[in-house]
Amino acid sequence: MTQPDLDAQFAFLAEADKLKSVMRANTLIDLSRHENSAEHSWHLALYAMVLAGQAAPGVDLGRVIQMLILHDLVEIDVGDVPLHSAGGQAHDSPEIQQAEAEAARRIFGLLPAAQGAAFLTLWQEFEANQTPDAVFAKSLDRTQPAIQNIASGGAGWRDYNVSFADLEQRAGRKIARGLPAVWDWLLPRVKAFFD
Amino acid sequence: MTQPDLDAQFAFLAEADKLKSVMRANTLIDLSRHENSAEHSWHLALYAMVLAGQAAPGVDLGRVIQMLILHDLVEIDVGDVPLHSAGGQAHDSPEIQQAEAEAARRIFGLLPAAQGAAFLTLWQEFEANQTPDAVFAKSLDRTQPAIQNIASGGAGWRDYNVSFADLEQRAGRKIARGLPAVWDWLLPRVKAFFD
Repeated sequence: MTQPDLDAQFAFLAEADKLKSVMRANTLIDLSRHENSAEHSWHLALYAMVLAGQAAPGVDLGRVIQMLILHDLVEIDVGDVPLHSAGGQAHDSPEIQQAEAEAARRIFGLLPAAQGAAFLTLWQEFEANQTPDAVFAKSLDRTQPAIQNIASGGAGWRDYNVSFADLEQRAGRKIARGLPAVWDWLLPRVKAFFD
Repeated sequence: MTQPDLDAQFAFLAEADKLKSVMRANTLIDLSRHENSAEHSWHLALYAMVLAGQAAPGVDLGRVIQMLILHDLVEIDVGDVPLHSAGGQAHDSPEIQQAEAEAARRIFGLLPAAQGAAFLTLWQEFEANQTPDAVFAKSLDRTQPAIQNIASGGAGWRDYNVSFADLEQRAGRKIARGLPAVWDWLLPRVKAFFD
């Protein structure tokens, strides 16, 4: 590792500090404030460790955790686009996807070239949501906000007028795909909230 | 995985949410507020990924990242004890060590028994700072606040009247042990701050 590599790496790590100021739709469980994307990413890594026993055969926990640590860095440029904003359309729009892809190139481009390319590839794998590792990671990313909402009385869901059908469509299907037993556990609790 | 296991695991993950409200001595780089221990833990996991090439032979990056995700959970009960508080004595006092050990037993004790025991063992390995994985993890835990301080004009260091000798003693030695090239990179920058 050369000194210029360290210059680039510490520039990237300083840029990453900005993710602590990107605010999300859901709150902390104690309702004291909204959650930011950096602490959300930490919580997801802990979710991955705790729920590793639920992962499909062949899932590599280490790769999943690395995906989750990186997955929201693009929000430094694009902001968090809430899952339930604008009727759920905005979250997956081509405009947002393009803006996030540009952000990924800029932010991972701060690193030494080979390392930046490896991180970009891992982020793209998460976004594509096709490999077993990505499917497990994406399921965790849908599970944690549901738990935050259930435990805090649904503050985030109420702010966005979310219905049970919305939640099943936008979160439930992805949770059920990677973490079927967790969706079985969540379903009666989510239904109880919307009843 | 049984439903009672999931009950215990989600109780643990909800308890962990409180780490987002434990505040640290150092600030965000933009000085907008102090950093909390959850987002600090996320940043350290990213540091581990970025600086993995600096790790000693035999270091297991996946274990290091898991250690870093867990390492501050005891602060939910004990709070963050700043490295430079009370002349640097409080941080390593037997009283703090005992309180943290009790916190670890309570918090990891929320999990199913075998998983809680495994997490406790990983936390104890980090604290003991003897294995190559722990030495690398501890070096990262000393590097990140130094970078935050240098990049933000030393707000945290000023608040605690830290001198160059303090910093070399309490952080520099641990950084040099696990990340010698990083300490070489940091040293002139730290010196420039205290000059």
